[in-house]
Amino acid sequence: MTRDLHSPPRATQSFSAHLAPRASKTKDQRGTLHPAARRLLLDASPHPRLLAQERPGGRGPRKSPLSLPCPSIHPAPASGDPMARAHWGCCPWLVLLCACAWGRPKAVDVGGQDVRNCSINPPYLPVTVVNTTVSLTALRQQMETQNLSAYIIPDTDAHMNEYISQRDERRAWITGFTGSAGTAVVTMKKAAVWTDSRYWTQAERQMDCNWELHKEVGTTPIVTWLLTEIPAGGRVGFDPFLLSIDTWESYDLALQGSNRHLVSIITNLVDLVWGSERPPVPNQSIYALQEAFTGSTWQEKVSGVRSQMQKHQKTPTAVLLSALEETAWLFNLRASDIPYNPFFYSYALLTDSSIRLFANKSRFSSETLTYLNSSCTGPMCVQIEDYSQVRDSIQAYALGDVRIWIGTSYTTYGIYEVIPKEKLVTDTYSPVMITKAVKNSKEQALLKASHVRDAVAVIRYLVWLEKNVPKGTVDEFSGAELVDKFRGEEQFSSGPSFQTISASGLNAALPHYSPTRELNRKLSSDEMYLLDSGGQYWDGTTDITRTVHWGTPSTFQKEAYTRVLIGNIDLSRLIFPAATSGRMVEAFARRALWDVGLNYGHGTGHGIGNFLCVHEWPVGFQSNNIAMAKGMFTSIEPGYYKDGEFGIRLEDVALVVEAKTKYPGSYLTFEVVSFVPYDRNLIDVSLLSSEHLQYLNRYYQTIREKVGPELQKRQLLEEFQWLQQHTEPLSAKAPDPASWASVLVVSTLAILGWSV
Amino acid sequence: MTRDLHSPPRATQSFSAHLAPRASKTKDQRGTLHPAARRLLLDASPHPRLLAQERPGGRGPRKSPLSLPCPSIHPAPASGDPMARAHWGCCPWLVLLCACAWGRPKAVDVGGQDVRNCSINPPYLPVTVVNTTVSLTALRQQMETQNLSAYIIPDTDAHMNEYISQRDERRAWITGFTGSAGTAVVTMKKAAVWTDSRYWTQAERQMDCNWELHKEVGTTPIVTWLLTEIPAGGRVGFDPFLLSIDTWESYDLALQGSNRHLVSIITNLVDLVWGSERPPVPNQSIYALQEAFTGSTWQEKVSGVRSQMQKHQKTPTAVLLSALEETAWLFNLRASDIPYNPFFYSYALLTDSSIRLFANKSRFSSETLTYLNSSCTGPMCVQIEDYSQVRDSIQAYALGDVRIWIGTSYTTYGIYEVIPKEKLVTDTYSPVMITKAVKNSKEQALLKASHVRDAVAVIRYLVWLEKNVPKGTVDEFSGAELVDKFRGEEQFSSGPSFQTISASGLNAALPHYSPTRELNRKLSSDEMYLLDSGGQYWDGTTDITRTVHWGTPSTFQKEAYTRVLIGNIDLSRLIFPAATSGRMVEAFARRALWDVGLNYGHGTGHGIGNFLCVHEWPVGFQSNNIAMAKGMFTSIEPGYYKDGEFGIRLEDVALVVEAKTKYPGSYLTFEVVSFVPYDRNLIDVSLLSSEHLQYLNRYYQTIREKVGPELQKRQLLEEFQWLQQHTEPLSAKAPDPASWASVLVVSTLAILGWSV
Repeated sequence: MTRDLHSPPRATQSFSAHLAPRASKTKDQRGTLHPAARRLLLDASPHPRLLAQERPGGRGPRKSPLSLPCPSIHPAPASGDPMARAHWGCCPWLVLLCACAWGRPKAVDVGGQDVRNCSINPPYLPVTVVNTTVSLTALRQQMETQNLSAYIIPDTDAHMNEYISQRDERRAWITGFTGSAGTAVVTMKKAAVWTDSRYWTQAERQMDCNWELHKEVGTTPIVTWLLTEIPAGGRVGFDPFLLSIDTWESYDLALQGSNRHLVSIITNLVDLVWGSERPPVPNQSIYALQEAFTGSTWQEKVSGVRSQMQKHQKTPTAVLLSALEETAWLFNLRASDIPYNPFFYSYALLTDSSIRLFANKSRFSSETLTYLNSSCTGPMCVQIEDYSQVRDSIQAYALGDVRIWIGTSYTTYGIYEVIPKEKLVTDTYSPVMITKAVKNSKEQALLKASHVRDAVAVIRYLVWLEKNVPKGTVDEFSGAELVDKFRGEEQFSSGPSFQTISASGLNAALPHYSPTRELNRKLSSDEMYLLDSGGQYWDGTTDITRTVHWGTPSTFQKEAYTRVLIGNIDLSRLIFPAATSGRMVEAFARRALWDVGLNYGHGTGHGIGNFLCVHEWPVGFQSNNIAMAKGMFTSIEPGYYKDGEFGIRLEDVALVVEAKTKYPGSYLTFEVVSFVPYDRNLIDVSLLSSEHLQYLNRYYQTIREKVGPELQKRQLLEEFQWLQQHTEPLSAKAPDPASWASVLVVSTLAILGWSV
Repeated sequence: MTRDLHSPPRATQSFSAHLAPRASKTKDQRGTLHPAARRLLLDASPHPRLLAQERPGGRGPRKSPLSLPCPSIHPAPASGDPMARAHWGCCPWLVLLCACAWGRPKAVDVGGQDVRNCSINPPYLPVTVVNTTVSLTALRQQMETQNLSAYIIPDTDAHMNEYISQRDERRAWITGFTGSAGTAVVTMKKAAVWTDSRYWTQAERQMDCNWELHKEVGTTPIVTWLLTEIPAGGRVGFDPFLLSIDTWESYDLALQGSNRHLVSIITNLVDLVWGSERPPVPNQSIYALQEAFTGSTWQEKVSGVRSQMQKHQKTPTAVLLSALEETAWLFNLRASDIPYNPFFYSYALLTDSSIRLFANKSRFSSETLTYLNSSCTGPMCVQIEDYSQVRDSIQAYALGDVRIWIGTSYTTYGIYEVIPKEKLVTDTYSPVMITKAVKNSKEQALLKASHVRDAVAVIRYLVWLEKNVPKGTVDEFSGAELVDKFRGEEQFSSGPSFQTISASGLNAALPHYSPTRELNRKLSSDEMYLLDSGGQYWDGTTDITRTVHWGTPSTFQKEAYTRVLIGNIDLSRLIFPAATSGRMVEAFARRALWDVGLNYGHGTGHGIGNFLCVHEWPVGFQSNNIAMAKGMFTSIEPGYYKDGEFGIRLEDVALVVEAKTKYPGSYLTFEVVSFVPYDRNLIDVSLLSSEHLQYLNRYYQTIREKVGPELQKRQLLEEFQWLQQHTEPLSAKAPDPASWASVLVVSTLAILGWSV
């Protein structure tokens, strides 16, 4: 409602910043995937309608990129690229989300699109194409100085972020193609892009004839092409900070024995060409979160990590943190260098006797420097070194008798290659990532509190929609703006946690759909509407999806909605042994759909942070998520999508808590902390068991208790009234035969004049 | 009932053979395990009582091995050895079965055991110890001639079989220690065994003081020991046919850079020492199954595999079959070289233009040679080469322009090392293993038919028990003998498919328990009784578990039984998308137990063959099983075990069939083909939903339809009567309020004289 005075520097600014050009930023999130998931990804392709919604633009890409209505966030697209492992970022879980049902391969109709034609002379180039001749020539000059036959330009940044900043969009800048996934390779004679089917049309609209388009993904086709294009002995350059360890290994393996050599070049050649046109390094303040919003002090966190180092059987002397969320969490620092995530470019090297934070020192206020105890050099003093020094510093540190612990899932080859293998201690996730996954009681309380306020914003929006949709004045885009605005009015708000998915009717069945100001659909009482949105608050990150219908849904829509709801309930109320993997239980969210031959093609949930990532690894229900433990938060979000008609998703965030079981044992269950009622208009009560009804009515009671007072406190009386109505206990519609019979008996007896 | 005249040679003999010394044969089955499973295994240790039940013996091991009551079969023990991957055999799934709940680590009480004491002079050696000085000296002489510093003696055979024959029990012979899991290493000065906690006491009772006992498993501790025991430059010998590719790789990796070298020696040095004492090579006939018992001719199967070779993107020129079940299946040949599995020692090399079967030619009758078309050399002629020639023949074949397709899970280093890497096409499972997993309609009918007859045997036994247990004359061992006998009387019987688990009271909670003639427990009306048994029939392999109580079970026993039953039902009636992995759905078999804080520590099911393995890979519910497909058979077997009190397991075999769903889609479900009713005495009907009751009553109706006529046909009228009683439809015990009310209304109206 009101902005708090204790606003951390710049935090309030990031809200509007997120709605600016970045809102249309597209970026996948990918990670270490189960092979099956990766196989599925290979089939992923967009819905033709999605492509039809591209909006035209001019030379724009370099400054305001052309973009498909393909948000960076959920449901997010994914490539089938084996290099997917290269990408880190907050959350690769959604890869699966889009890969299956949504991603059913379809022939992409390029005919009606305004695309290039390089087979005629002169070639036909639509206005959306970027002329890259000059920059390519300049790049080849740089390659020549390095004696390279080829240069690889990936789509990542140095931290494998889910969302990357414009200054990291090198592949988009050099090719003109702004799709979120795709690798470019330039030789002295040719230039080529490999991207998946979601982006083929977009690439044909944006790239000039300097570029070949290859409709495959993965290192294998790239290397196969390279072998025919560059001579024996040829050197293949790459920026080691843009390849994950795994991706580097796959290139290295594929090139083995070919007499072509990978050459790590730490100065990015595209950056040299991009020059002063390249967006500058962020210079906003890096601020410390107030103690009220942190679960522990940074000193406590540092001590905790050091204690894990000591306990580790390989006794590492240092932990190297490469993911931005790790540094943000460890030091309780935030900024807004990249979209949606309150992070700042940094690395940290936490040794047994020192703490080194690699970041731009000028971005810290004197208060923050004091907070970090940065004027000393003891084991509890944070020494700030320049971000650009990280590689040299790690290399120098590695000269000693040390062992450096890294999380291999999100460390780049640029760091990896300077540490001798015998001095590496590798785990998939760093101890910071693992520790962060389990929230302590204060963090739990903070995250819950943010969800109560978040519910207020969503409820205000739903109430407003209920009144305004029938007027025919609301569209998907204005709706998204409004819910973002309502969130922005909540205490401690720091902008959306991802681009709001506001999708009406058939659009809700589309993968990675978000409306734009130019292209959107009217909301109508005749259609279902899906809203998937979340906020960043200083106390927590939120993410909730509700699907509503203001008119008369079809029987099938009600059945599908109710079965999705049953899935949500069945997983939410499941009792399972401690340390069970999410993948072992996620089918409970699907069973009610499977029963009648329905399903959804995405994952069932992901971790979430305290003013950190909305998709926080490594918690969730996928095969590469870690086992469930008390104190973790995960989303639970089954759905159903009827191609060309409607989409349903019901997403809640839930805390993993201990379950009390009849017989003693270490069991867990979920406590849902999202507090917005489901749509009664879409629930077919006859499909619910008495256990479902009981669960639902208990949940509604909780919503009343949590959100009701908040609405009353703020005099949101209309919203309070709405909440009361929408959380009325549900009961089986038809009175059961027992009740009828009882009524009859009572009546009969009454007739007879007997007292009962 | 009656032995069929069309008995294949020797098939009838194998029945009694299985009850002879081999019946106490112990052998784990292991395979490629999920890392988590392997972690669990590291904790596995036996229940003290298990050890207390060892039966004494003398020098016996060499001829009739001392054995723990630890059957080779389910529930089977497992080591946490990373080398577990080395073992193939029909089914490693049970590793998990024993690793978790049953395998909870417990201090093994060695105090009361008669174990060796090597720390006094002279050492104390119990009578159970085997003097190994002479054979060790002889082995070291052999090592000297090979210039070896150490020699590794694994516990496997050359086909990674689940059950190995006595002539392959080299580790047991050289050490005296007969436990099923454990690796021995001999240096010129020392000798040591590594085994897991299940076997520590047994090893201390059986090994003399020549042997160190190491209480760890895996290649790492062995290599760590080797590095301190053998000099730099030392050569470590091993029999390449006894190491899987994975195990060899783990030794190789661990020794890298140590200046100690692995040396593959194809003549087994223990065999040289064992000499004429070693049990001879089997010489029983290898016989062809009659066409009535095969799903396809061998010619059809060969063509099918060749067609897969052609379709494979790497176009292999040959498939090499190392697992005995592969050869048995491909050629429709059987024998009884190893316990419980009707196999014969063999390899096969199926090329695009030839078929080479490596086996002992003298074991084929002229009819079988004709059947195999073995007198020609065309693409549809089976050329029989000597078993011992396999390595040389493969090596010679690999000289050509060929690509050899192998299943890496069960091929040994002895074959692998003679094929140049660039000529290998590797998959986890060979096309034979994958094809065999899906039964065609004839195989399905055969397997189902064997289950009907198997049900007759089990029902006969249950009826007999019901009459005889109250007399106090039945014990676990005599019971096991009787059910084996009843199975033996069924048509097409070819012996048990594993050692019968017949466990009363607290014994049923023990891992890998089977009774012996000397040590067993009386069956009683006061205790629960668990029977897990199966048969080999020419048409199919069976495996079923029932748990019964003839007296008054406790409320908790009924609850636990009913929840296990619900788990069985919930998984059996699940509808799931085609190609779903078993591990995604196995939790449905656990949910009813989890609800109240109960669980079981083993896997939920495994594939099964047509007169092949009772534990047939790669079908099942574990993480390394392949996706479910129509035509597969799997067991479904949840359980619950109350340590020191009782054990419950309800196991059925089910066929994966297409499910008809309300909305169109490719969905599967299970059709249970085991036809023995559950124990009504143990079902608490109030815990069952109406869906459960409906399912159960439908299942009971099916049992009546399938087994009833069979019993009547054989004049087994008492059994028929029993079946009718035990398949009476179940209904919710207390009439529901509606019925009561109706009765009341009707009565009231009747009183009033109204007609209704």
